Amino acid sequence: MKKLEDLQAIIGEAVSKLSYPLYPAALYGPISYILSLGGKRMRPALLLMACDLFGGDIDAAISPALAIEVFHNFTLMHDDIMDNAPLRRGHTTVHERWNKNAAILSGDVMLIEGYKLMMQVEDRLLRPILDIFNNTAVGVCEGQQLDMEFENLSNVNIDEYLEMIRLKTAVVLGGALKIGALIGGADIKDADLLSSFGEHLGLAFQLQDDILDVYGDPEKFGKQVGGDIISNKKTYLLIKALELANDEQTNKLNNWIDLKHFDNTEKVSAVTAIYNSLNVRQYAEDAMQNYADKAFDALDAINLPEDHKQYLRDFADGLLVRES
Amino acid sequence: MKKLEDLQAIIGEAVSKLSYPLYPAALYGPISYILSLGGKRMRPALLLMACDLFGGDIDAAISPALAIEVFHNFTLMHDDIMDNAPLRRGHTTVHERWNKNAAILSGDVMLIEGYKLMMQVEDRLLRPILDIFNNTAVGVCEGQQLDMEFENLSNVNIDEYLEMIRLKTAVVLGGALKIGALIGGADIKDADLLSSFGEHLGLAFQLQDDILDVYGDPEKFGKQVGGDIISNKKTYLLIKALELANDEQTNKLNNWIDLKHFDNTEKVSAVTAIYNSLNVRQYAEDAMQNYADKAFDALDAINLPEDHKQYLRDFADGLLVRES
Repeated sequence: MKKLEDLQAIIGEAVSKLSYPLYPAALYGPISYILSLGGKRMRPALLLMACDLFGGDIDAAISPALAIEVFHNFTLMHDDIMDNAPLRRGHTTVHERWNKNAAILSGDVMLIEGYKLMMQVEDRLLRPILDIFNNTAVGVCEGQQLDMEFENLSNVNIDEYLEMIRLKTAVVLGGALKIGALIGGADIKDADLLSSFGEHLGLAFQLQDDILDVYGDPEKFGKQVGGDIISNKKTYLLIKALELANDEQTNKLNNWIDLKHFDNTEKVSAVTAIYNSLNVRQYAEDAMQNYADKAFDALDAINLPEDHKQYLRDFADGLLVRES
Repeated sequence: MKKLEDLQAIIGEAVSKLSYPLYPAALYGPISYILSLGGKRMRPALLLMACDLFGGDIDAAISPALAIEVFHNFTLMHDDIMDNAPLRRGHTTVHERWNKNAAILSGDVMLIEGYKLMMQVEDRLLRPILDIFNNTAVGVCEGQQLDMEFENLSNVNIDEYLEMIRLKTAVVLGGALKIGALIGGADIKDADLLSSFGEHLGLAFQLQDDILDVYGDPEKFGKQVGGDIISNKKTYLLIKALELANDEQTNKLNNWIDLKHFDNTEKVSAVTAIYNSLNVRQYAEDAMQNYADKAFDALDAINLPEDHKQYLRDFADGLLVRES
């Protein structure tokens, strides 16, 4: 089995070889630009990994893997407009470097280019793979819409939040694995199980992200501790805390949320204290473990040699214990 | 052969039956809204017409025809954001009624929904039809990009202008006809010829539009005479005039273009006088006739019974002599 890093390198190389017309420059320039900004290439690497696991030729999976990466970067280009983000991976976003119209239209072309790449599969797989791609793509758009709406809602509940992160981040992991599995020769049952593994692992990973923001070791985690608290991001922890809080705790939380000027450390420390008193970390870890269990259950049921499953377990363990 | 009006009515009925999820409302609401604003449904009707001409069952072409209509409305939704347009078919645009982010994301979903509809063809046609759809879609985006760029350029030449209108408006007519022809059972040669007919007819129609803006009967044309002149729109007439003008005429034209406050009638009359002195109407009509000839040449070469070709000739004549 090929190592994840090797698969990521293969994708990195293939991305660098993608070429687009030079004219109109403002239409195609942003595509080459955003693709050159790097990233972990995790989604396309997972697609190759799935193909490899089922004994497929990964060369046959490279174009569809690129499709997933181009699609992902299309969503980033449009999300950055919607979020008014100035930076993406430390570089100026497309709508800032060019303009919003260029970012809208280049994103549109990227989505089409994603389809063109995804179509580079053998005929018998064309329809099933495009069906998966369509559903994945619609799911990601629905997730982004819910994410934007939740920013302005005070009464999001846990189920709505979980559905949002499932759509926005987990569905594409499941979709990439399923497409890779089919190209690798898996039957639909195993492809579905691998997809379920990926989707639940993605949910667990996202919840871990919420937990690490508050409780992670900043040196290992590489982000500012409490960044989500400072920006009032609706995470599992905040939503659960608002659900469990008594009147006094609710008032305190809402006061911190409404405050325009505050000391970052003080806010993080005060909100974390409320989280601790409500034990929300434990709820989040239970939910995360629940998704991880579902991921491993799906994995166990796949018809693959034991060492192949162990490879996936090791991959999942690597993702889920980044910190502690 | 079915009448164009009947085909348009079939599409209108099918569009009204398209249904989208109720949630998230701000994602799917704009899709139902823009599709409900009407329009002539010309592109999808042409797709059905092509299928009918080759003896196909138009029921098999309805989903792909809807795909073309959904795709067209996706481009309108995004174009309206880029153009800051307040109205579309007399109604508030999506980005004004909802907001820009909703219009971006709903448009993205519409493009995906377009692919889903376009995939509802028999397996043997799936790849060729999606290839046509991809190329059409990329062409339309390139055309929109060039159109936006040309607004801010003073030195657009005629060839660039013709390529822009080809991409922005003619390619999709050719694409719709080609897809319909293939569904109807045409071989690739005839489908290509019909596509060429549609693309050249589209170019001729667009040039006629430029001419009618200045020289059309306002009662028959239904638009303000000289609207393009008032808004400094780069039409064939303006570009050709700037190409042919001597220094004095160039200065006069540029003065009118730069003037911020002016009397509409006075500007239209002065610019039209320059057009007349340079005979640009004749150039435009020659170019239009040239494209019409190419359209009819392609038509003549199609392997169809004579009465079917006459149907297409009548259709083209109806499009091209709206006025005089």
